[in-house]
Amino acid sequence: MARILDTINSPADLKRVPLEQLPVLAREIREELIAVASKNGGHLGPNLGVVELTIALHRAFDTPTDHFLFDVSHQAYVHKLLTGRRDRFATIRQPGGLNGFMNREESAHDCFGAGHAGTALSAALGMAKARDLCGGQEHVVALAGDAAFTCGVTYEALNNIATTTKRMIVILNDNEWSIDKNVGAIANYFNKLVTNENYSYLHERASRFIEKIGGRVAVKMLKRAEEVTKGFLLPSVIFEELGLTYYGPVNGHDIPTLIKTFEFLKTQEHPVLLHALTEKGRGYAPAMVQRKAFHGTPAFNPDTGEAAGATTTPTFSQLLGDHLCQIAATDPRVVAITAGMPNGTGLERFQPRFPDRYFDVGIAEEHAVLFAAGMAAKGFKPVVAIYSTFMQRAVDMIIHDVCLQNLPVVFCLDRGGISGDDGPTHHGLFDIAHFRGVPNAVHMSPKDEDEFVDMLHTALRQPGPVALRYPRGIGTGAKVKAQPLTLTVGQAEVIKPGGPVAVWFYGRMGELARQLADELARRGYDAAMVNARFAKPLDTAALEASARSAGLIFTLEDHALMGGFGSAVLEELSNLRLTVPVVRVGWPDRFIEHGKEAGLREAHGLTVSAALAKAAPYLQHLKPVAV
Amino acid sequence: MARILDTINSPADLKRVPLEQLPVLAREIREELIAVASKNGGHLGPNLGVVELTIALHRAFDTPTDHFLFDVSHQAYVHKLLTGRRDRFATIRQPGGLNGFMNREESAHDCFGAGHAGTALSAALGMAKARDLCGGQEHVVALAGDAAFTCGVTYEALNNIATTTKRMIVILNDNEWSIDKNVGAIANYFNKLVTNENYSYLHERASRFIEKIGGRVAVKMLKRAEEVTKGFLLPSVIFEELGLTYYGPVNGHDIPTLIKTFEFLKTQEHPVLLHALTEKGRGYAPAMVQRKAFHGTPAFNPDTGEAAGATTTPTFSQLLGDHLCQIAATDPRVVAITAGMPNGTGLERFQPRFPDRYFDVGIAEEHAVLFAAGMAAKGFKPVVAIYSTFMQRAVDMIIHDVCLQNLPVVFCLDRGGISGDDGPTHHGLFDIAHFRGVPNAVHMSPKDEDEFVDMLHTALRQPGPVALRYPRGIGTGAKVKAQPLTLTVGQAEVIKPGGPVAVWFYGRMGELARQLADELARRGYDAAMVNARFAKPLDTAALEASARSAGLIFTLEDHALMGGFGSAVLEELSNLRLTVPVVRVGWPDRFIEHGKEAGLREAHGLTVSAALAKAAPYLQHLKPVAV
Repeated sequence: MARILDTINSPADLKRVPLEQLPVLAREIREELIAVASKNGGHLGPNLGVVELTIALHRAFDTPTDHFLFDVSHQAYVHKLLTGRRDRFATIRQPGGLNGFMNREESAHDCFGAGHAGTALSAALGMAKARDLCGGQEHVVALAGDAAFTCGVTYEALNNIATTTKRMIVILNDNEWSIDKNVGAIANYFNKLVTNENYSYLHERASRFIEKIGGRVAVKMLKRAEEVTKGFLLPSVIFEELGLTYYGPVNGHDIPTLIKTFEFLKTQEHPVLLHALTEKGRGYAPAMVQRKAFHGTPAFNPDTGEAAGATTTPTFSQLLGDHLCQIAATDPRVVAITAGMPNGTGLERFQPRFPDRYFDVGIAEEHAVLFAAGMAAKGFKPVVAIYSTFMQRAVDMIIHDVCLQNLPVVFCLDRGGISGDDGPTHHGLFDIAHFRGVPNAVHMSPKDEDEFVDMLHTALRQPGPVALRYPRGIGTGAKVKAQPLTLTVGQAEVIKPGGPVAVWFYGRMGELARQLADELARRGYDAAMVNARFAKPLDTAALEASARSAGLIFTLEDHALMGGFGSAVLEELSNLRLTVPVVRVGWPDRFIEHGKEAGLREAHGLTVSAALAKAAPYLQHLKPVAV
Repeated sequence: MARILDTINSPADLKRVPLEQLPVLAREIREELIAVASKNGGHLGPNLGVVELTIALHRAFDTPTDHFLFDVSHQAYVHKLLTGRRDRFATIRQPGGLNGFMNREESAHDCFGAGHAGTALSAALGMAKARDLCGGQEHVVALAGDAAFTCGVTYEALNNIATTTKRMIVILNDNEWSIDKNVGAIANYFNKLVTNENYSYLHERASRFIEKIGGRVAVKMLKRAEEVTKGFLLPSVIFEELGLTYYGPVNGHDIPTLIKTFEFLKTQEHPVLLHALTEKGRGYAPAMVQRKAFHGTPAFNPDTGEAAGATTTPTFSQLLGDHLCQIAATDPRVVAITAGMPNGTGLERFQPRFPDRYFDVGIAEEHAVLFAAGMAAKGFKPVVAIYSTFMQRAVDMIIHDVCLQNLPVVFCLDRGGISGDDGPTHHGLFDIAHFRGVPNAVHMSPKDEDEFVDMLHTALRQPGPVALRYPRGIGTGAKVKAQPLTLTVGQAEVIKPGGPVAVWFYGRMGELARQLADELARRGYDAAMVNARFAKPLDTAALEASARSAGLIFTLEDHALMGGFGSAVLEELSNLRLTVPVVRVGWPDRFIEHGKEAGLREAHGLTVSAALAKAAPYLQHLKPVAV
């Protein structure tokens, strides 16, 4: 049977679907979401939750004239399906396919990209003000999950909205569970709004009223009603005090009511916030039960919800959780802090064993780092586990509150390096540059799982700040030895000394380094191999030894070349007054698209052949020696 | 006559002063503040406002056992006077003297340093939680100005306080004017609390009650009173909803009431927020009238309040304000954004001429950058003027919201480079490292005022993001020509080509470069001179020409050496496969203390003689030629 979905090539097509057919369309969209996500992986749960919301938005508003800003924007799959990208939807998160997030380059309907939480209200306010200055009539709608309200920048926006524009629509997509279960006072506050009996009662009345009347007529009548009842739709004090008119809570899966509510909100001449209640994972039983797993999922069996190709090799994140528990068991000063990602960072393994020493602060990286600094100032050893890309939120606190005060905070930079399917907002390619120039900072990265555990122990023995960077997923699968070693900070591991050529690698690039050394050997160059371990402090003595022996040094890193590990090597060689040539292998100066790691490395020159091509002008002057 | 102040060598001494003598002490402290600030400059206004608050704090609490965290901490002068640093107070902000901010290295009474706004509540929560885990009884008090409540991170802390600890005291030091006049919804909200008649009435009663009873007795009675009156001290809905009990507003200059209120708050077993009203600049007429000027002041005549040594040469900040007006007059798409610093950034000159296109968003750098990105996405050309050191707050937004989307936002990085008397929290020594590795970013810096205006024009003609960095204060004083030039992005200014030695400088280092070239000439080396103009994109062709001509290249920059301009030169030379040696001159890998610029340069090797000493091993191999 032909699908309604297949007739929709633009929002205009959607507007022609009879209202009573929209629930059918919603079901078709859910089926499509499940089918594609089961193959490609992706943020299934969030998208299943916003099917009706997105349909109603595109019925009531007109993109690209009107603007939708989706906070974090991993919940834009439905929007993509309805805005001319249905035929390519099966390519989402695949190499060369649609991006998993809003993307200005992909469609005029994606007015603003996002990948980190909390940005929608501020960016929407900028667009709304631009509209005002031009005298435009278009609508600007920010859709933000409840977790966005744990971000400070969302509050900064709220503080500015009412004094900046009279027309802006904020939709609070409240599923109580944006990634992990929400935390903090604001989550309690939302819950209070939802469960308040007065609210429910008044909402019922308001909802029926809007449904019955709708649009501009409702405005006038509501105004009168407000005068009479003083609060026909009950205000939320926090939002009202900040100058936004609060409406809700409204059922986020009731399409007709949503449409009429949006038509009503369109007429408002003051900033409004609509509190919509949705169910994450709605319509797919496994996603309703395992909300965390289906927030962002790998490919899975759509019938059972079981993840495909699940491996028993523990990820770096899992190793962090487990080994931090071991350390914490003997050192009561160790505490663990996550910014809304206990699952992603592995700290969910720490939480049940040390609930008093575990802190999920919400998506609040700045607070996370400051909170850690405060604890460190009182003698604790905080471990702050945040993805490399999200740690960018806390650069100022890392510099001034931790490093300037030389406090012993351990930054566990998960997803350091290329992150694959999620694309440019999730690759962690800048952290060496952010940490290396900061006095007192140490930056280390392990070649494999076993060294990771050594480094975790080492980091927690340091008297000052340490960044410990490791990749997404698994490493080489190296077995973790029973007793971890404490490494000497600033000392590289010289795997093979000497040689006319030296290969220095940082972190996970050991395998590529080995392949490069093998190929060099085949060509007659007996290459030295050094696992740098520390981007800062760099092992000056080992580097000098390499430089004095070799006529060429390779540096391999999973980081932007500009300001990265290779750059550190160049600086140190310059300090040493050694002019040995260096061939740097890493990510070029462009944002790296989403894709599979191997394909991206191939495309951007992180391969043996690309390294050798760069090195060719030098190698031709080095005499090959049979090895 | 002997001063009471001279008898106070510790908070214990303060506690022995008879209560009725404390107003005398307050007057002496104000005289001392005015006398010292008139010589040394500093944050006079904020400190005059917290004299009584600080006295009362040290009467009621016991540092260093108890902890005071002063947000932004430029208002800690009185605290320093009362905690054993009176004898050195005349050295504040002087080379080798006391720092103008809280500083852990300076005193055990300074439990946590600060220099950027909004950090106190988060750090205090970390300390409070550490206390809880250890079973300690000490008090943690965060004192934050109203401006701190425009910072997102303060909200992140508020969201976490009630769920994290039962004992923490927040003091909102509300002077309505933390730097410039406060903006946004929260400022209106505070004003509403203060002017609400019910609040005032109830506060009067509560105040009299606390004054009469005081301490633990008051708690019990208040509990009973609360039961009876349901809100003897009226709550603030926002803070109450976030889980803090609100008390106030209270007169922040009434020492006896403050002491008794603190004694009362000490007994509370839930997080509390005390709203204290203070007058910025209190007790010194010029500071009361010119609140902005005396927020942070240079040396001045204490009799008249007139700034000493005021010059008519416009600062870079003033040039920004004036020339942005000229550009905006003909380009309606140009808008200007400041994060609470219209005075410091020069945008106060823009505001009256283009009030609709001027935005002060509060101390909310993340929002400022996102708001700019939103406007740029709608075709505007936002200029975001933020000090280099404060822009660190928005690194993530710069990367993902602006540069990834390649939006034409101009970042005016004021106070780029060493900032002098304010010290390490205010030096801007990391911005090249933060911007250079980011794809699509341009980073430029002018040699003088005239080139600054050219660059401003150039930046606003760019289709993508640009960072324009310039120093605090004035440059060479170069006259700005009538018609600005549009520079070619990525093109250096080769002031003098060729030569056996080449001196490349970035931004304000032109004068040092000239001195270096002169000295080289005296020694027989005819040095080329290149004004790089762009740290990114670097002028590859000019660099190659230098490298092919010269046997040695100097790079001069007012930035950390690690990851700075010289590092960019090393990378580019490596890309060009040129191995000419480079001597890099810039700030070493340590936090730079406060001081006078010349002295700091001398101490840290940013001098001709230090550059030549570094270069000596190379120069001895270069043949001098008579020039």
